[in-house]
Amino acid sequence: MKDNTGYQRKTLLFGTAYYPEYMPYDRVETDLSMMCEAGMNVVRIAESTWSTLEPSDGIYDFSYIDRVLKAAEKKGMEVIIGTPTYAIPSWLEKKDKNIMVKTKAGQAVYGRRQAMDIMNPSYRFYGERVIRRLLEHTAGHPCVTGFQIDNETKHYGTSSELVQKLFVEHLQQKFVTTDRLNETFGLAYWSNSIHDWNDFPDMNGCINAGLSCEFERFKRSLAAGFLLWQSEIVKEYKREDQFITHNFDFQWKKFGADIAQDGYSYGVQPDINHYEAAAAVTIAGTDIYHHTQDQLTGAEIAFGGDSIRSLKGRNYLVLECQAQAFKYWTPYPGQLKLHAYSHLASGADGIMYWNWHSIHNGYETYWKGLLSHDLAVNPPYEEACEIGNQWKKMGNSLLNLKKDNQIALVVDNQSLQALEWFPIDRDLSYNDVVRWMYDSLYELNMECDVVDVNGLDPFKYQMIVTPALYSITEDKCKQLKEFVSNGGVLVSTFKSFVSNEYLSVYPDTQPHLLHECFKIHYNQFTEPGTAKIKGRPVRYFAELLYTDGARVLASYDHKYWGKYGGITQADYEKGSTYYIGCYTDKDIVKEILKMAVKDAGLSDFIPDVCFPVIIRSGVNRDHKKIHYVLHYSDEETTISCPYERVNNKLDGKSYKKGDRIPLKDWDAVILEEE
Amino acid sequence: MKDNTGYQRKTLLFGTAYYPEYMPYDRVETDLSMMCEAGMNVVRIAESTWSTLEPSDGIYDFSYIDRVLKAAEKKGMEVIIGTPTYAIPSWLEKKDKNIMVKTKAGQAVYGRRQAMDIMNPSYRFYGERVIRRLLEHTAGHPCVTGFQIDNETKHYGTSSELVQKLFVEHLQQKFVTTDRLNETFGLAYWSNSIHDWNDFPDMNGCINAGLSCEFERFKRSLAAGFLLWQSEIVKEYKREDQFITHNFDFQWKKFGADIAQDGYSYGVQPDINHYEAAAAVTIAGTDIYHHTQDQLTGAEIAFGGDSIRSLKGRNYLVLECQAQAFKYWTPYPGQLKLHAYSHLASGADGIMYWNWHSIHNGYETYWKGLLSHDLAVNPPYEEACEIGNQWKKMGNSLLNLKKDNQIALVVDNQSLQALEWFPIDRDLSYNDVVRWMYDSLYELNMECDVVDVNGLDPFKYQMIVTPALYSITEDKCKQLKEFVSNGGVLVSTFKSFVSNEYLSVYPDTQPHLLHECFKIHYNQFTEPGTAKIKGRPVRYFAELLYTDGARVLASYDHKYWGKYGGITQADYEKGSTYYIGCYTDKDIVKEILKMAVKDAGLSDFIPDVCFPVIIRSGVNRDHKKIHYVLHYSDEETTISCPYERVNNKLDGKSYKKGDRIPLKDWDAVILEEE
Amino acid sequence: MKDNTGYQRKTLLFGTAYYPEYMPYDRVETDLSMMCEAGMNVVRIAESTWSTLEPSDGIYDFSYIDRVLKAAEKKGMEVIIGTPTYAIPSWLEKKDKNIMVKTKAGQAVYGRRQAMDIMNPSYRFYGERVIRRLLEHTAGHPCVTGFQIDNETKHYGTSSELVQKLFVEHLQQKFVTTDRLNETFGLAYWSNSIHDWNDFPDMNGCINAGLSCEFERFKRSLAAGFLLWQSEIVKEYKREDQFITHNFDFQWKKFGADIAQDGYSYGVQPDINHYEAAAAVTIAGTDIYHHTQDQLTGAEIAFGGDSIRSLKGRNYLVLECQAQAFKYWTPYPGQLKLHAYSHLASGADGIMYWNWHSIHNGYETYWKGLLSHDLAVNPPYEEACEIGNQWKKMGNSLLNLKKDNQIALVVDNQSLQALEWFPIDRDLSYNDVVRWMYDSLYELNMECDVVDVNGLDPFKYQMIVTPALYSITEDKCKQLKEFVSNGGVLVSTFKSFVSNEYLSVYPDTQPHLLHECFKIHYNQFTEPGTAKIKGRPVRYFAELLYTDGARVLASYDHKYWGKYGGITQADYEKGSTYYIGCYTDKDIVKEILKMAVKDAGLSDFIPDVCFPVIIRSGVNRDHKKIHYVLHYSDEETTISCPYERVNNKLDGKSYKKGDRIPLKDWDAVILEEE
Repeated sequence: MKDNTGYQRKTLLFGTAYYPEYMPYDRVETDLSMMCEAGMNVVRIAESTWSTLEPSDGIYDFSYIDRVLKAAEKKGMEVIIGTPTYAIPSWLEKKDKNIMVKTKAGQAVYGRRQAMDIMNPSYRFYGERVIRRLLEHTAGHPCVTGFQIDNETKHYGTSSELVQKLFVEHLQQKFVTTDRLNETFGLAYWSNSIHDWNDFPDMNGCINAGLSCEFERFKRSLAAGFLLWQSEIVKEYKREDQFITHNFDFQWKKFGADIAQDGYSYGVQPDINHYEAAAAVTIAGTDIYHHTQDQLTGAEIAFGGDSIRSLKGRNYLVLECQAQAFKYWTPYPGQLKLHAYSHLASGADGIMYWNWHSIHNGYETYWKGLLSHDLAVNPPYEEACEIGNQWKKMGNSLLNLKKDNQIALVVDNQSLQALEWFPIDRDLSYNDVVRWMYDSLYELNMECDVVDVNGLDPFKYQMIVTPALYSITEDKCKQLKEFVSNGGVLVSTFKSFVSNEYLSVYPDTQPHLLHECFKIHYNQFTEPGTAKIKGRPVRYFAELLYTDGARVLASYDHKYWGKYGGITQADYEKGSTYYIGCYTDKDIVKEILKMAVKDAGLSDFIPDVCFPVIIRSGVNRDHKKIHYVLHYSDEETTISCPYERVNNKLDGKSYKKGDRIPLKDWDAVILEEE
Repeated sequence: MKDNTGYQRKTLLFGTAYYPEYMPYDRVETDLSMMCEAGMNVVRIAESTWSTLEPSDGIYDFSYIDRVLKAAEKKGMEVIIGTPTYAIPSWLEKKDKNIMVKTKAGQAVYGRRQAMDIMNPSYRFYGERVIRRLLEHTAGHPCVTGFQIDNETKHYGTSSELVQKLFVEHLQQKFVTTDRLNETFGLAYWSNSIHDWNDFPDMNGCINAGLSCEFERFKRSLAAGFLLWQSEIVKEYKREDQFITHNFDFQWKKFGADIAQDGYSYGVQPDINHYEAAAAVTIAGTDIYHHTQDQLTGAEIAFGGDSIRSLKGRNYLVLECQAQAFKYWTPYPGQLKLHAYSHLASGADGIMYWNWHSIHNGYETYWKGLLSHDLAVNPPYEEACEIGNQWKKMGNSLLNLKKDNQIALVVDNQSLQALEWFPIDRDLSYNDVVRWMYDSLYELNMECDVVDVNGLDPFKYQMIVTPALYSITEDKCKQLKEFVSNGGVLVSTFKSFVSNEYLSVYPDTQPHLLHECFKIHYNQFTEPGTAKIKGRPVRYFAELLYTDGARVLASYDHKYWGKYGGITQADYEKGSTYYIGCYTDKDIVKEILKMAVKDAGLSDFIPDVCFPVIIRSGVNRDHKKIHYVLHYSDEETTISCPYERVNNKLDGKSYKKGDRIPLKDWDAVILEEE
Repeated sequence: MKDNTGYQRKTLLFGTAYYPEYMPYDRVETDLSMMCEAGMNVVRIAESTWSTLEPSDGIYDFSYIDRVLKAAEKKGMEVIIGTPTYAIPSWLEKKDKNIMVKTKAGQAVYGRRQAMDIMNPSYRFYGERVIRRLLEHTAGHPCVTGFQIDNETKHYGTSSELVQKLFVEHLQQKFVTTDRLNETFGLAYWSNSIHDWNDFPDMNGCINAGLSCEFERFKRSLAAGFLLWQSEIVKEYKREDQFITHNFDFQWKKFGADIAQDGYSYGVQPDINHYEAAAAVTIAGTDIYHHTQDQLTGAEIAFGGDSIRSLKGRNYLVLECQAQAFKYWTPYPGQLKLHAYSHLASGADGIMYWNWHSIHNGYETYWKGLLSHDLAVNPPYEEACEIGNQWKKMGNSLLNLKKDNQIALVVDNQSLQALEWFPIDRDLSYNDVVRWMYDSLYELNMECDVVDVNGLDPFKYQMIVTPALYSITEDKCKQLKEFVSNGGVLVSTFKSFVSNEYLSVYPDTQPHLLHECFKIHYNQFTEPGTAKIKGRPVRYFAELLYTDGARVLASYDHKYWGKYGGITQADYEKGSTYYIGCYTDKDIVKEILKMAVKDAGLSDFIPDVCFPVIIRSGVNRDHKKIHYVLHYSDEETTISCPYERVNNKLDGKSYKKGDRIPLKDWDAVILEEE
């Protein structure tokens, strides 16, 4: 997966998104001065400002950009230029009403961002034109360090006539005959089979999960194609030293109200395939929003980081890093620093706040930036200053942190969407299962790559974890079997290896093919009711496992299901497998993971510490081992130094093995091995 | 109500719905062999497979049917042929977009079943053609034992221009002048009266409950008419010995998520009148889905059975019987047997699982059949084998169970929908009240007919129970009064006898007319707040009863309502009446029912056992009394034999009065009197 | 604010809305006799009966009106004539489909009331014609005492092409250039800026809170304009002695189900500005619905009354007063009387029940009137008789109660809607904050005017309370500052003085400008988490206050926020200010209010009694001081007489200071000072 042609940062980036267009009065000089004082060295601009850049059809105004570039040059700051295409100006919608996306819910009305049809030819025409003008204008500027193409791109549910036509062409190419189409998706069900391609119905009414998810996959590929198209345009203008990035975002989980100021980056993104789209960039970028205050755990930062780093097997940029954000997340003293080091600990080569200032109008007025609405010095800004000045001092020794993880957690958009059609439980989504497994690894300080199933090379890893990998090709099953044969450790949960890539449930023994490795099979599953396992309640789902040679690690405590296995282990050829057939407490998962890691020969992965003390490690550009010790708690504590001789880069203190390392509340310590 | 022209089964049916069209590979021979091994003697096919039967306009392919018929003939099995009309092929929608039903919510998009306009002429034309071809092809086959017309037919909310035009014609015929229309429904309210039939507005915006419910009733009659139309076509082809049935379903109650795998058969169906539609069939059929595992009570099976049996006063078929269904309902050992005998105990002449195998694609992938997705032997299949083999042995002695119930529970679509416009409480629907009363009877082992108010002949019964019979004609009121005068026992709850058939509240003393029999009246009702009755909380609703000669069985425990009656009894001429003016615990209802049954002279109806031991009885074709003893519990128990001399047909053991009859968990015992 | 040209009642009105059109049979004589027996002297008719008054285009039928007028004349009753325009006949919708309102959700379908476009020219044409005919017919009749124009008028969300065009014209007039428009609302955000008025987009998709709320304000002004238009028509016909009123209603708060029988009058009305619209009437009118039974507190009656009285600074009519209403509100004995006196205690010059009889059909069948559906004497009617007869006796000594409140609670539609875009919390609306402050005053017996910010003259008051006055003009800020400078007391909560009138957050120190008076500022706020204040939990929202000279009355009990103020007081020039920076228990608010009232020199405002004993006072037309003592409790109690010498007008008993005045459950006592 390592992409050796990729772009490599030479300096750590610390900065912020900046929208002088949104300011109530001209503050470019003031703002950049305040940024410099905070040790910032980059601003990210222009993204989403099309109506400012091109106020009328063919009339361009780059004055805001010029003002920032001029000031940045004076201050010696880098500038990232974003293409403005994810929010269209109203004059464009007036030209062609069909630019607004048509989805199942009807056609979008102009107003919000990300409401256009990314396949609409007018949109592409005008989009290309503004990108070319913007690049012509900025690519030559010495401060411009790179380009962000579009922003948080997704397919936006497009199902216009054109998109549906393209989809039918895609199906024709793939299946050739309607008979093969019918068989593949089982369309005879409820009279949905067709016998003439002209009879293919409107996908908006489709009730076939397989066909619907094929359409979703197709739309994801349109979104990735859209980014590749932008990337090709940018490449015509950009210098060798300039990067192309994109701001990949995660599935958003609301935590209450139907308002903007609500939710966080939770799991796998359903509406674009990051792995597929990553081909469009030379360095991956992302935004990660997360709980703070008493709920700050670092898990979202780590999950997002492990995911984005794994796209290209390289370092990445946090293009949007959380400042004050919502009222729920006003950071406690120390937390902004902890956020920053948490990102670096996953391999980020820089962070940029979203955004510089709280906005005085518009939808995101209370998605607060580093500065509050008074645009004055405040506690978060003061803490950002500390970060900036520490980074200036530590220079590039924190840059290009390299990891060589032996564990892969495998994720899959298709399984995600399959389980929306066929929920495990109303209250247990695919991403819940992913996070349940990921967070268990995280809390045990077992670092992993989070790998898209399409990009997985199993043989790079010692241990593979599959949370609810519902949909999987025959070939990938065989590969995983070979992985185990060769000595790999496979840890899988319920609802793994159930259907093929078209969501057809494999009509043979479950889990398909890999039941041979797990040495179990099942043909019944159930809502757990009052069942317990290892004294803890089973929740949401339980498969009733028959063992075919596996060792039962835990069976159900239940009058009727007691005879079935719930969690099993089996040795298969040179490898070992674990099957977790039900949902239960993370503590039990952790016990299993500890056994699995041992089988995989990775026992050094388990330092004697665990959450709320998180240790994440890597090798820096000077080939030194770096350990970030991150303390997600409002208590003070100490840990015993697990390394021979280390040096805390933040205060210069040295520790040898067994020394007590003190950790304050919400503390970060960076240990460098000598 | 007895329909002596009806069809009478000569053998008990045990079988399954079967869709070879949905199979991932050809298994007809294998499947029918497995069925035979399980003692099955019937398959139900073809329903919903239009796109397979007629892949293109006028091109027919009956090969799947032929394959099943051939194999069935070899095995000696019967086959029920379903007309495929409840799911249309996409080529048909392409011919005439108006085939998709137009409802209040707009026009349906092609995809799901039951989304067409049953009044659309194109649909009727093509529907008739495929039915005729199918009947021509199959009616002569010796295995074909009967036909199911359409499936779970309802009106699907059709309110197309045509349907609205027909409705206006219906109103014109009924009311002649707009003045009578205005008066009948009180249209002057909010300026809704009309003075020219051309001004009749779109029913989709109607806010007049009476007129809306008249429209609902009209749409129900369209649905019944649709079945009669199919029935007439089928009659042109079918042999004398072949039956016509339909799969009547009940109001579905969801228990959580908005997904397919959720809900159960709860109460009266709002969208077709079963009693009206039953004229289309020679033997009634139904599907009943219900809680299982710890929640299995048998109440839905009994309610559904008592309802469907009462349609024609005859035995019926359970065309869809629950196999594994949802994850919530994976049956415990013994429960599949208990389901089966519960159906027979209500008078079913056969059961067919839905369906044979779990489907590998499509919407109902996790509405599991008897076989799991691996299509192999599994615990439910093994239990089905036990059932089949028992039935083979007991032969027809379980067939044609006849009941002569003296209690009628009266139900009414119109009251159901009236109380959706005017809810008793957000959390108490009409069907909740129906089930509250029905379940109280059921748990006391007081068997009853569940009778549509339109088909009720009160004089057939000793005791009539009316749960929330909100809407009632003047004539029916008079009949009930006469019923009481003549010695009948009437048990009514709050919200009975409130409005006429057009939902006009009777503008005189409440309960209308029958207050004379109850010897109470009221003009106030209230949310109960903290009120109690007989020490139990009153919930949802309380009428404040003035007594006019009635005996107060319970009054409210409340500072201000204490002076009013809550539950009353009165003797009226030769009869007795009970009025339950508020909602409270079932235990209190049961006390009332015990008194009422005594008044009705039905004290032999109360054996000394009650839920979780349910006894349901009847007379078999050999004129022997049969008692099904059904044990809905995971505990073991015994009961004292209440009959002089009986024989357990399942194990041959004999008991005389007072002997202990042991009952295992989820057990069924069938006692035949000697 | 006093409107000395207004209409002044000379007799107290006691009566009811009456719709003979809705009656199942002719009862005009009977009903008016029953009314007279109850001491009623007025009926309110015709409102909403257009289809009866004009059954076909241009054909009029005033027979129902004539019948009522004739009977009223005989009985000596007054009649209020309502224009029928808030529900249109179906023939009108057939003439012009565009009469149905187009909103964000699409075009309304004919059926319900208030579903037309108030700006539609056809609607205006036919509306004017029927008003003129009705006025011609009725204005000369001696019984006709006044006219109600339309009913509960609001803008109904109209966003038709015409309305949007008018809105653009309004913006052009206000802002002249698109540049000023862009700057004012910050439209550059998400590419929403325009550079040609022709590019102005459909407001239905608008995501700019400021622009959307400007549109809301514009639509409110259309609604007010609609009433002014009707008023001008009526003035052409009405006699000098006849009044014009309108039935202003409040924001409705549902308490559960999505049905008609649910909800109550809660707070500021978002969809019309009462203060602006009050110009159309000569006497203000209102409807107020409220909890009863154990939840009767009188708070809604007082809030509604204080609001409506403050519109014109004069007495008003309760055009719809709650009779039996929903099942939740069946009144306990005594409560109907308590309702009636509660209205008078706020300055009402009359009450009319809604409505006379419970309706036998239609949407509001269970919004019960004084009579139940049996149209017979019942407990509420009997209690109404008591009221009527008391009022006959006390004659006009209860009329024209004048108040001279020194406290103003300031409310604002714009802030209400701003906080729907930017919620303080999912569970804390603007009106929740208003009611939190209002109810605290109310429970302490601190009477206040509830004043629209647009009509506020601060210098009339000693003390001003601003709950969440989010949006405020620069000028109004300055005025409030001057108010404090001159010795006023200002009590403000969090989220006050945040943005300008276009919802642009002031980009300087918060709270804008007035931070000088409060001597605090803040740049951070937070979800309170576990924070407490004065031992009580802080909920929903907490601003972290820096003090700049203020006295901290309470700071947060929290590990990290402890250093910030939560509630502060400051002396500023001659005045005093209180700032409540977080939401917490009302008890704490009350402590603050007691201090503030003392600062304002209003200590005589605090009698030694508080809720559930409420005292509301004023001066009657004979210049005597009247004190209503209202007891909202089911317990009996006594209070010590706080007045030198008073006389209970209801039973004639006299009390001197310190005497015990007994209060029964749900009692009302009217003390007149000697």
